[in-house]
Amino acid sequence: MSSTVTAKADGRLERGHVKRQAILRQAVDLASLEGLEGVSIGRLANRLGISKSGVVLHFGSKEELQLATVAAAAQRFVTRVCDPAMRQPVGLARLWWLCWGWIDYVDHRLFPGGCFFSTVGAEFHSRPGRVRDAIAAAHLRWMELLHRQVEAAQGAAELSSDIEPAQLAYELDALVRQANLGRQLHHDQHACARSRRAVRDRLTSVALVDLPAEPSL
Amino acid sequence: MSSTVTAKADGRLERGHVKRQAILRQAVDLASLEGLEGVSIGRLANRLGISKSGVVLHFGSKEELQLATVAAAAQRFVTRVCDPAMRQPVGLARLWWLCWGWIDYVDHRLFPGGCFFSTVGAEFHSRPGRVRDAIAAAHLRWMELLHRQVEAAQGAAELSSDIEPAQLAYELDALVRQANLGRQLHHDQHACARSRRAVRDRLTSVALVDLPAEPSL
Repeated sequence: MSSTVTAKADGRLERGHVKRQAILRQAVDLASLEGLEGVSIGRLANRLGISKSGVVLHFGSKEELQLATVAAAAQRFVTRVCDPAMRQPVGLARLWWLCWGWIDYVDHRLFPGGCFFSTVGAEFHSRPGRVRDAIAAAHLRWMELLHRQVEAAQGAAELSSDIEPAQLAYELDALVRQANLGRQLHHDQHACARSRRAVRDRLTSVALVDLPAEPSL
Repeated sequence: MSSTVTAKADGRLERGHVKRQAILRQAVDLASLEGLEGVSIGRLANRLGISKSGVVLHFGSKEELQLATVAAAAQRFVTRVCDPAMRQPVGLARLWWLCWGWIDYVDHRLFPGGCFFSTVGAEFHSRPGRVRDAIAAAHLRWMELLHRQVEAAQGAAELSSDIEPAQLAYELDALVRQANLGRQLHHDQHACARSRRAVRDRLTSVALVDLPAEPSL
């Protein structure tokens, strides 16, 4: 009897989890196109054919929904860009894969509106609060990841030690994210190739060893 | 008599122009912080202490107001960034001043929300229409300006002819606009210095002559 009750409760939890994930997928896709303010509980309910109260049940408030949307987008980014890079050796190879992965993520439209974080970062930069902080924190985690790989590559004598790690990480991030501007604002099919070339040239200019082969992602 | 009528009409036109400019200043500042969708006719009327119909009279529709806002922002940018550079010799000096001017424009908050075009570009990239086209066209004019200076600098044997002008313009634009991300999303006081250093290093890597002195803007 008690195992039946537990099984039923497990089933409810599982269905709740699946529904929550479905709502968040829609929310992330919509926000990448139009920003987080365009993601209303009513609109999501309408798109998914569920009641507004069904959405509220999962997230409580618009702010909680926005925070969960940022977290879900970050998870999608990590799975697509960071995880494959983390299987590469620490240092130059991983740095290289991270940059390529970022460009590839724009090239293959992991989010329908291009880089989710570029869209919502521009939307929230002047709106203090938890949502803005979550967006900024996601970008900082990415920057720290680049920074650590530069340091590791220097430690392994793969990159010149004359380079300040934070400066190189800053430049690489600038060069990869320009691909998003070109793709989204100008529908420029060459933007991703330009960013790849820029990253390759910048790394080559400070590398003490040959760059690894170009990733096939 | 007819000259009095003309003088009265001139006075009305002049007052109309002044009021239109006042509305647009508010609209540009607001949009740089919150995006163009946040700039409603009602909100502007409220801020300026005039009637909604007074705003409508000048712009007709929300779309016309948004288009006029983009044009006014572009004019403010040209006056602050492009005009001083255009007084420099064509080629490397002008290219250098354009990049510095862009970073300086973020550093000194020409718009209260940082780069107007970064905010509204991210807002409108997935919204086809005249407003999106106007934002994209403003960015293209800037890119063409950089591109022409690279070509001129190559023609004057100031920059290596191995460089593809469009590629270098792409990279320089990436490196300057990263300053806006750092300033706006992370309140990073070092972002502008990092962008200046990145631009200087990139230009030095392909310059055949010494870079001009650092502009004092």
